[in-house]
Amino acid sequence: MAPLLTTVRLESAAAGARAAGIDALLVTPGADLRYLTGYEALPLERLICLIVPAEGPVGLVVPELELPAVRDSPVSQLGINVIAWPETADPYDLVRHVLGESLPGAPNRLAVTNQMPAEQVLSLREVLNKAKFGLAGDVLHTLRSRKSTEEVAELTAAASAIDRVHERMAEWLYPGRTEREVARDIGNAIIDEGQASVDFVIVASGPGSAAPHHLPDSRVICSGDPVVVDIGGQTSSGYHSDSTRCYAVGQPPSLFVEYHQVVYAAQQAGVAAIRPGVTAESIDAACREVITQAGYGKYFPHRTGHGIGMQIHEQPYLVAGNQLLLEPGMVFSVEPGIYLPSAHGARIEDIVVCNESGAQRLNTVPRRLVYL
Amino acid sequence: MAPLLTTVRLESAAAGARAAGIDALLVTPGADLRYLTGYEALPLERLICLIVPAEGPVGLVVPELELPAVRDSPVSQLGINVIAWPETADPYDLVRHVLGESLPGAPNRLAVTNQMPAEQVLSLREVLNKAKFGLAGDVLHTLRSRKSTEEVAELTAAASAIDRVHERMAEWLYPGRTEREVARDIGNAIIDEGQASVDFVIVASGPGSAAPHHLPDSRVICSGDPVVVDIGGQTSSGYHSDSTRCYAVGQPPSLFVEYHQVVYAAQQAGVAAIRPGVTAESIDAACREVITQAGYGKYFPHRTGHGIGMQIHEQPYLVAGNQLLLEPGMVFSVEPGIYLPSAHGARIEDIVVCNESGAQRLNTVPRRLVYL
Repeated sequence: MAPLLTTVRLESAAAGARAAGIDALLVTPGADLRYLTGYEALPLERLICLIVPAEGPVGLVVPELELPAVRDSPVSQLGINVIAWPETADPYDLVRHVLGESLPGAPNRLAVTNQMPAEQVLSLREVLNKAKFGLAGDVLHTLRSRKSTEEVAELTAAASAIDRVHERMAEWLYPGRTEREVARDIGNAIIDEGQASVDFVIVASGPGSAAPHHLPDSRVICSGDPVVVDIGGQTSSGYHSDSTRCYAVGQPPSLFVEYHQVVYAAQQAGVAAIRPGVTAESIDAACREVITQAGYGKYFPHRTGHGIGMQIHEQPYLVAGNQLLLEPGMVFSVEPGIYLPSAHGARIEDIVVCNESGAQRLNTVPRRLVYL
Repeated sequence: MAPLLTTVRLESAAAGARAAGIDALLVTPGADLRYLTGYEALPLERLICLIVPAEGPVGLVVPELELPAVRDSPVSQLGINVIAWPETADPYDLVRHVLGESLPGAPNRLAVTNQMPAEQVLSLREVLNKAKFGLAGDVLHTLRSRKSTEEVAELTAAASAIDRVHERMAEWLYPGRTEREVARDIGNAIIDEGQASVDFVIVASGPGSAAPHHLPDSRVICSGDPVVVDIGGQTSSGYHSDSTRCYAVGQPPSLFVEYHQVVYAAQQAGVAAIRPGVTAESIDAACREVITQAGYGKYFPHRTGHGIGMQIHEQPYLVAGNQLLLEPGMVFSVEPGIYLPSAHGARIEDIVVCNESGAQRLNTVPRRLVYL
């Protein structure tokens, strides 16, 4: 496989900044930083900030105690100027200083990582008070949403690992166990299947399945429960998986079985509607149409999907109002659901890639209701 | 045990806002929100915002699909006005509207959660462009740094659980295993010992121990390795642990054994210096003095400690320049270290509570170098 990381991403980011009239991108730990440099920094309170000027050399401001981690990271091979700050220095003033070296005069427009914590945003504004602040995502998320062949391969590997976990569900999911016990076994299996870490494990049984973001709790799973299992992990290079299947422990309510088929048909319709040049919202509409026609429209409260890559949720979002045109290389979830308040719910989710002729699912494990 | 959660925290937050001349606190998911309401919201991209006005009723703006989670959470028992926004609505405009109902005229001063992502900060600024924005931490972190008896009990339980994991280290840490394998077993043990989740597991062996924030990797542990193990989890109510011990797998370099004793003495000196009324920086100075006297001053690059509670790192920070006076009920780490670049390193860390007469350690497992 070709290396995921070269200076090309940094060059594209600088070009994006130039095109948008931004003097510099200020990138703090998280997906943007890892995408651009391979540096998987801990999101701690000490400022770590990559400075990508529209023109000129890239700089990385880090606390001194992170220097060994920087040296061990791919960032050290990119020829970036690393500026370390001692524990009692003011790192914000250092950023101002580094910016001053590559920009003639004070910067007019700066763009910060969308996830940068407010305390860092406000501190940067204070030392750079002549500049107008915007979001680096306007440049970086466009880059990140168009996956390379190597990135699609990483996302495919992540999806295959999570598929293998779904295939083993009968080992862990049976009456008498708590959601938390099942969730723990699933988490271990995600690591067993080769993932570097577990991102989230939703085991939503019985009434819990009516909440799209139910957290596993001490509820004991009973015969007759519908169970929604929504799980994800990440590869060692930081690409995520996210896939949902529905299970029936024993014989679930017939109403559940009925609307699970509606969710199944909606998910098929959504995937079938994907091709380059259609809007993101049209995929949402295709799923919603099936659910609305079946009379469950008001029980599908969320958007149909989200992009996925180095963040679990990123652009493109498949939601009414998003007229972004899909392009080959975009990777996102298609995950319609129906949730009957306080009763139960169902969701089916695959990660798909938009290619030249349509969509290819990265998750391929059967989507029908699985009876355990 | 008395309930951790009542409306007292919300009332104290409003009083703090009034005292600081802030019209309202805007609190998004994370420790501030959980501390004030018990609501453990996922930090997703959809806006969830608690509005705590200086005067008047508290409001919680949430996406519709989070309503079931809100109903299941302690927040539902606090009499807070919950305002749900449908998937395609503008939640920022909704926050402006809710603020308008409790404040006469446009707000002048607002304070946002320190961890609020930049994309939310900038969106709020756009709809509330007459207001000056500050950090809610100025009010909330002061409240949160003074732990109640019940909170100290939670932190003690968290510390005891992580102590039990350290006591079992010989089960997992031996030559021939990778750092990642050991880290995984430790993670499982943290759950086995009753914690709701694992926060972090640092297993830094051989040269990796020279990096304070080394991430476990595929390095195989060898006889003669010093190994720094720095681990933490959280209780089901969201209070954290964080403790570091050093292990020797076989006979480590004699230099390591020598300076481990210096770190031990420094940590003792730091804990001995704790009492109400002394500055946070004086504890750092007490540790640093011992290390400097022994000739290792330049190899102790980080501050001596950080507060801990519902965040792993919070106020008070034990660092040169912080003249905050310690008070009874403050809980923080004391964790001096010595790191010889590219060779090896040592750190010893306990969580301690400042009480009326001095410090009480919450971690009580022996701090001497453990030979395995």
